[in-house]
Amino acid sequence: MSKTTLAIIAAVSAGTGAAVTAAMYSTRSEKKIQAVASSTAISATSNTSLPAPYPAQSPILPAKDIVPPVDPAGLFQYGFPGPVADLATRNALVSSFDRRLRNPSWVAEHITPASLSISNGDRKHSVFVEDPSIPEKFRGKLKDYFRSGYDRGHQVPAADAKWSQDAMNDTFYLSNMCPQVGEGFNRDYWAHFEDFCRRLTHRYPSVRIVTGPLYLPKKDPVDGKWRVSYEVIGNPPNIAVPTHFYKVIFAEDGTAQGPVAVGAFVLPNAVIPNEKPITDFEVPVEAVERASGLEFASKLPVQRRKRLCADTVCALVIKEYADKQKAFAKDQQKQIPAPTRTSPRYSNL
Amino acid sequence: MSKTTLAIIAAVSAGTGAAVTAAMYSTRSEKKIQAVASSTAISATSNTSLPAPYPAQSPILPAKDIVPPVDPAGLFQYGFPGPVADLATRNALVSSFDRRLRNPSWVAEHITPASLSISNGDRKHSVFVEDPSIPEKFRGKLKDYFRSGYDRGHQVPAADAKWSQDAMNDTFYLSNMCPQVGEGFNRDYWAHFEDFCRRLTHRYPSVRIVTGPLYLPKKDPVDGKWRVSYEVIGNPPNIAVPTHFYKVIFAEDGTAQGPVAVGAFVLPNAVIPNEKPITDFEVPVEAVERASGLEFASKLPVQRRKRLCADTVCALVIKEYADKQKAFAKDQQKQIPAPTRTSPRYSNL
Repeated sequence: MSKTTLAIIAAVSAGTGAAVTAAMYSTRSEKKIQAVASSTAISATSNTSLPAPYPAQSPILPAKDIVPPVDPAGLFQYGFPGPVADLATRNALVSSFDRRLRNPSWVAEHITPASLSISNGDRKHSVFVEDPSIPEKFRGKLKDYFRSGYDRGHQVPAADAKWSQDAMNDTFYLSNMCPQVGEGFNRDYWAHFEDFCRRLTHRYPSVRIVTGPLYLPKKDPVDGKWRVSYEVIGNPPNIAVPTHFYKVIFAEDGTAQGPVAVGAFVLPNAVIPNEKPITDFEVPVEAVERASGLEFASKLPVQRRKRLCADTVCALVIKEYADKQKAFAKDQQKQIPAPTRTSPRYSNL
Repeated sequence: MSKTTLAIIAAVSAGTGAAVTAAMYSTRSEKKIQAVASSTAISATSNTSLPAPYPAQSPILPAKDIVPPVDPAGLFQYGFPGPVADLATRNALVSSFDRRLRNPSWVAEHITPASLSISNGDRKHSVFVEDPSIPEKFRGKLKDYFRSGYDRGHQVPAADAKWSQDAMNDTFYLSNMCPQVGEGFNRDYWAHFEDFCRRLTHRYPSVRIVTGPLYLPKKDPVDGKWRVSYEVIGNPPNIAVPTHFYKVIFAEDGTAQGPVAVGAFVLPNAVIPNEKPITDFEVPVEAVERASGLEFASKLPVQRRKRLCADTVCALVIKEYADKQKAFAKDQQKQIPAPTRTSPRYSNL
């Protein structure tokens, strides 16, 4: 088990993830204070049903003894601060965006034997595009990646959306990208890991995958303190470079209430030797939840869950990826925003 | 102007914040895809009107040519991942919590000459408490602060909620705290800054203040790259130590549609000499928005805005804070979770 994996597991306190998750909603509401129930933090990409970005009223309840002389929720007259999840429902994926770090919070996809068997889309017809559904000041930009040394790394892989060109194009929004180390990771180990996910459809008729970035602390060997440290690319600095990436996989048996094989993996954004077993990166779902601030299975009863890597063999198939790498390099070289370029370490434009 | 201020302003691209903010909502929705309009990312602390945490349906629209063979939004059967804003509406404040960093995203308060003139609450009757409205696995803990070297720094100050003991107690939830440097910051310059905000009520009949943490990049002098680096306190590591704090101030004239004097400030979480003018830390509101991923004045028309520090004198009054510091130290020593303690650098238990 890798150091990374150990550190993450160390960060999960005692108790099974499943039980803690299932019990989650019962821990709320010790005070009978009224919520701003009408407000919503989701910015929708619909142009017909945009929810109101701030609450319609300020439901302050009086303190026990005295009518409150103030109205803190009156702030919302100037707009609801957020955070806004920028939920986007596209053909190939559903995604949520982190406006502070300019990366997705998570992207969710669904693959089946049938969807992967259709080949209507080709990545050579897709181009990387900024996501106009994200407000300009929070958007990741093509120029941020220029000469950054990082690939524009798909979170939902293009190869999972070959069933239509439109669907594949959906995966090329920068809101589906994070800065990823190219050689040795995005174009190698991570690509093999994506291939592993697709091969799960040989055994499971329906596979759901949630993918996203993490920013994990490391223990400083000198002073013993834990610190998070990550680069921010762009000029001015704009997009955070994640330290790690997660995938949470739900492998379904195709029935509505059947068992679900759940697997969670956390990989460093770094060169990983092909020999490394993928099981080295397996973690409890709760470890990803604690690290990301998200919850992935709060509505999945414990009795329906199985552990993916106990239910099937979790192992990568390392194929000759020369052709694939060529395709990657070609992709990354598309849409060069500057007229001239020197040779970057990774072909990551 | 400080280096910090310059760096933040450098991160704001050309264009006035006000105009960009006002235009924000018009940049959305280039694709006619249906949003998951019924979903909400807000977890309310009400026990009567908890909104559904995931969408009731999966509104996938077909691609142009082909019925989609997949249903990415079907993930929501297992629960909506988030992010969840944990909006809490209390007597003294409205707050939103960052489940990943275990700090508030923002806290909003409202002060008036009348509210500050009432003295029903005393901080000696208040105790620091963990916030039970936050799910346990995302909650900041009292033990995380123990021997961390940092104060439990109020974001809405206790002194702003003296109008009732209940209201003051509201400010002692850890969801209103961030780890702050004690001597030279929380107990000194930051306290003087909070006092400045209160004194604004001498001139303005109604003052709203939004406060929160930031995690800003610094340029590495060696390789020229921008990096964010922050400590995480607790064992296992749990609460991020912000690099900076912001306040966005709305000073109102007491009328519904009158002019609003707006000021934004970003201070480093570090010792600041009392001599430093507070105007060194003044930034455009948009700088805070870009750094936080939040928006503070999207609904405030440009023509109603004035610049606070042009409308009034922005200067701290440095009083003898010996008594105040004693009160702080006393607060911080309350509720020591371990039976014995050695002398920490700051009395920050």
